[in-house]
Amino acid sequence: MNYLYTSKNFLTIKSKLILFRYSNLFKVLTTIMIVLYALSIALKTEIDSTKVLELFRLLDYFITLFFVFEIAIKIYSEKYKLNFFRDKWNIFDFIVIFLSLIPLSLFESIAVFRILMIIRVLRIITINDDIKKILVALTRALPSIIHITIMMFIVFYIYAILGVQFFSDMKSGLWTDFNHSMLTLFRVMTFEDWTDVMYETMEEYPYSWLYFISFIVINAFILFNVFVAIILEEFAKIREHEIKNMLDKDDKNLKLILDNIEILKDEIKELKRNNK
Amino acid sequence: MNYLYTSKNFLTIKSKLILFRYSNLFKVLTTIMIVLYALSIALKTEIDSTKVLELFRLLDYFITLFFVFEIAIKIYSEKYKLNFFRDKWNIFDFIVIFLSLIPLSLFESIAVFRILMIIRVLRIITINDDIKKILVALTRALPSIIHITIMMFIVFYIYAILGVQFFSDMKSGLWTDFNHSMLTLFRVMTFEDWTDVMYETMEEYPYSWLYFISFIVINAFILFNVFVAIILEEFAKIREHEIKNMLDKDDKNLKLILDNIEILKDEIKELKRNNK
Amino acid sequence: MNYLYTSKNFLTIKSKLILFRYSNLFKVLTTIMIVLYALSIALKTEIDSTKVLELFRLLDYFITLFFVFEIAIKIYSEKYKLNFFRDKWNIFDFIVIFLSLIPLSLFESIAVFRILMIIRVLRIITINDDIKKILVALTRALPSIIHITIMMFIVFYIYAILGVQFFSDMKSGLWTDFNHSMLTLFRVMTFEDWTDVMYETMEEYPYSWLYFISFIVINAFILFNVFVAIILEEFAKIREHEIKNMLDKDDKNLKLILDNIEILKDEIKELKRNNK
Amino acid sequence: MNYLYTSKNFLTIKSKLILFRYSNLFKVLTTIMIVLYALSIALKTEIDSTKVLELFRLLDYFITLFFVFEIAIKIYSEKYKLNFFRDKWNIFDFIVIFLSLIPLSLFESIAVFRILMIIRVLRIITINDDIKKILVALTRALPSIIHITIMMFIVFYIYAILGVQFFSDMKSGLWTDFNHSMLTLFRVMTFEDWTDVMYETMEEYPYSWLYFISFIVINAFILFNVFVAIILEEFAKIREHEIKNMLDKDDKNLKLILDNIEILKDEIKELKRNNK
Repeated sequence: MNYLYTSKNFLTIKSKLILFRYSNLFKVLTTIMIVLYALSIALKTEIDSTKVLELFRLLDYFITLFFVFEIAIKIYSEKYKLNFFRDKWNIFDFIVIFLSLIPLSLFESIAVFRILMIIRVLRIITINDDIKKILVALTRALPSIIHITIMMFIVFYIYAILGVQFFSDMKSGLWTDFNHSMLTLFRVMTFEDWTDVMYETMEEYPYSWLYFISFIVINAFILFNVFVAIILEEFAKIREHEIKNMLDKDDKNLKLILDNIEILKDEIKELKRNNK
Repeated sequence: MNYLYTSKNFLTIKSKLILFRYSNLFKVLTTIMIVLYALSIALKTEIDSTKVLELFRLLDYFITLFFVFEIAIKIYSEKYKLNFFRDKWNIFDFIVIFLSLIPLSLFESIAVFRILMIIRVLRIITINDDIKKILVALTRALPSIIHITIMMFIVFYIYAILGVQFFSDMKSGLWTDFNHSMLTLFRVMTFEDWTDVMYETMEEYPYSWLYFISFIVINAFILFNVFVAIILEEFAKIREHEIKNMLDKDDKNLKLILDNIEILKDEIKELKRNNK
Repeated sequence: MNYLYTSKNFLTIKSKLILFRYSNLFKVLTTIMIVLYALSIALKTEIDSTKVLELFRLLDYFITLFFVFEIAIKIYSEKYKLNFFRDKWNIFDFIVIFLSLIPLSLFESIAVFRILMIIRVLRIITINDDIKKILVALTRALPSIIHITIMMFIVFYIYAILGVQFFSDMKSGLWTDFNHSMLTLFRVMTFEDWTDVMYETMEEYPYSWLYFISFIVINAFILFNVFVAIILEEFAKIREHEIKNMLDKDDKNLKLILDNIEILKDEIKELKRNNK
Repeated sequence: MNYLYTSKNFLTIKSKLILFRYSNLFKVLTTIMIVLYALSIALKTEIDSTKVLELFRLLDYFITLFFVFEIAIKIYSEKYKLNFFRDKWNIFDFIVIFLSLIPLSLFESIAVFRILMIIRVLRIITINDDIKKILVALTRALPSIIHITIMMFIVFYIYAILGVQFFSDMKSGLWTDFNHSMLTLFRVMTFEDWTDVMYETMEEYPYSWLYFISFIVINAFILFNVFVAIILEEFAKIREHEIKNMLDKDDKNLKLILDNIEILKDEIKELKRNNK
């Protein structure tokens, strides 16, 4: 213990930096910086005073500097510098911070810059392992969801085309073309004032309720089935593992019993030999 | 390999067609055609230029021609031509393409023609095996859902009749007859501006909230129970299979042990005989 | 077969009636009558012609007569007449039909008569065994739901009282007293124009969004947990049964093995005795 | 039995009080008082007559007195008075009743007093063991929910900041600052008139539907995954216990068989020794 402490004093600056980079303090500091950054962005929207805004601008410079410094340490502490880019989260961090260093005036669109500024907050994910785990868990269900998305897209597509063909003249302009129809159908699926949409079309086409009710029922049916399917699928994965374990245990038990019986047989055989 | 290649050169046109019909290229081509067709229908709604629309009309002719050609190959490549109609998906394909060949002017209603045109997009299902599987999976839950639909229909029916008897004079015209009441109740079930409906009736019948709240609670209760029931039912199906497998394994293990013990018994019996 | 047929000719009228009462024909006839009755009530709301309505009135008399006749046969075919009232479904049938025989003029309120007329349709449940089963299954989940209803009632109660105390002066009149508050909160829980309610109160109490958001979050949390709890509980019931079966099977297998080993021991003991 | 009865007559007042404190009567009485109190608060909101309100004021004094008396008995019947405060439910009871004894005039804000009055109704939880159990069960799912809340907060945060940056000039004032944006997003997530919000922004930013649709889809995806995750997690907990039991049973069975085989071996060994 004491030895470690003394030896530490003799560490080169590089070693000290590497120690710092893998310390909890480094993680906590970065987390604090990101939260501070997130807070400052949120607070900026609430405040009008130019004086305070100036302060926030300074904080922004400071945090950006910290982020650059942080990435620099991370790269520096790798044995082979390029290993840093082997982790996709590091690449994400690097790109986000690098892009936010570009002066605002160079961006053609202010929108891109704004989105970039916000994405820096996402670095909280790359710092926190718990959130990383949740994110990975979320992506696990993606394949099951893709299939169903295709299914629902076909249903949406057909209803959207029919919607345009029949209701494109509606005054509300909800069905003027394919894009508008898709948006209107998404609205209907969320039950958001869907009867207003229906009552309007029913004035011209009295039986158009069939269109809406069938659309809602079909979507509810698909969504419900997906839900059940995913629960069952995830469950089957867990069970498969469990049952394999149990059967392995059974096999091991069986082998133990049979081996013991085998010994018995040998004993009896020997007994027989002796007897002769 | 080389032999196959040379032999292929000597293949008759018919054999070549059959090879092509069962190739992946054929599937991919048909899929591309259907997607192209779907895209063209969607884009048509966005575009006003008559020149481009003329182009789409040509594309439509071409795709229809391809579909006819595709069906022809499929029938031709069957050993017994009528076997083609043994597969219900093929019958679906055939009817859809055959009907879309009828000139538009022969259709009494343009609506029927429009729906027919759209249904051609559904052929994507008959081409893609994954979507076919999902569709079959969806129908599996149908029996459980039919029972509950009857249950909910009875609830809807009773509330609809009561709705007409009590609220038929409402200015909004939501309860004029059985059909309107059913539609209004469906609306209430989706929580779509249901308080507007309730507040109107409460002006004349102050206790009509009992009607609405009870309707919502009963439906929520039924839907919730169906949900739980279907999850449990599907699960029981999987488990039944698993447990059967485990018990079979147990029986096999048991037999192995008993057989071995039986051998032991025989050995001992022999020993006894020898001893005498 | 032939014997049965001839013997049937000699059956007394009573025996014939009893045979008829337990035949499928009787069930089908009653089902048809109830469906006919339900249809006629629904159609009556769609039709204005007095001539057709007169027809419906006649049909109504006829169906009522049939129901009386049906109950009479059911009672008559019981060995001990009062056994008929042992089945609670029969009591339900009897009361509904008996009450609907009372002339309309004797009812103080037309509302009671109307509800009574509709309840006759519920007899479809007492006829159809499948629907009976679903109904029984639905009641199974009731105990779990009662606990949660109490929980949610406490939440509703507290928020309703707070609602009256703070918002009773709102112009919309949504919070005038406890009853109105409860109804408004139910509305908020169904997300039905809940922001309209919130925005109104936020004008006077800027922090009232805390009231609404917390109410929604707490309710969603309770409902979600109930859902999970009920699925797990129902599942545990099924599993308990399954595991008991598996353990019984294991015990039987164990006994078989041990018994066989016991035989071995006896054999060896005998061998030892012989050897001595 | 008789002895107990006579001995009871000689009990000191203290012993009698302790007996009473742990009797069911004490529980029932307290429950009745709380329900009475809850009822009186609810009824007070419905009634205008000052005479009846005066009556309610008297009832309120009486109930408060009962609560004080109840707490006093509870503390008095503990062997070591301070043990009473070991149970957190007791501390809750004590604080609520103590605070409600403070005269209304001493409260700076009437709001605090009102909330305090209502919280007294929560004492129904500390009395009823069933509700206590539900409450504890509800908190069990909290850890899983906290993780997801963080996840959703990040999503909300990013969308709120983007909302302010892009839509802060909207006339509706829904996006003026971070707080308003968060509230608006919560509204969008409940599908409450979300299209009104979207249509307004689409007038200036035609592609803002991307913002809303992506927000809804991401949230639905997260919520859905949480749901599945919690069901599976709770299930795994139950199963783990079950499987452990089954494996223990298997081990016990295995040991029984092996022990018996061991006896056989010993017997045979003895046989061998005898034979030599």
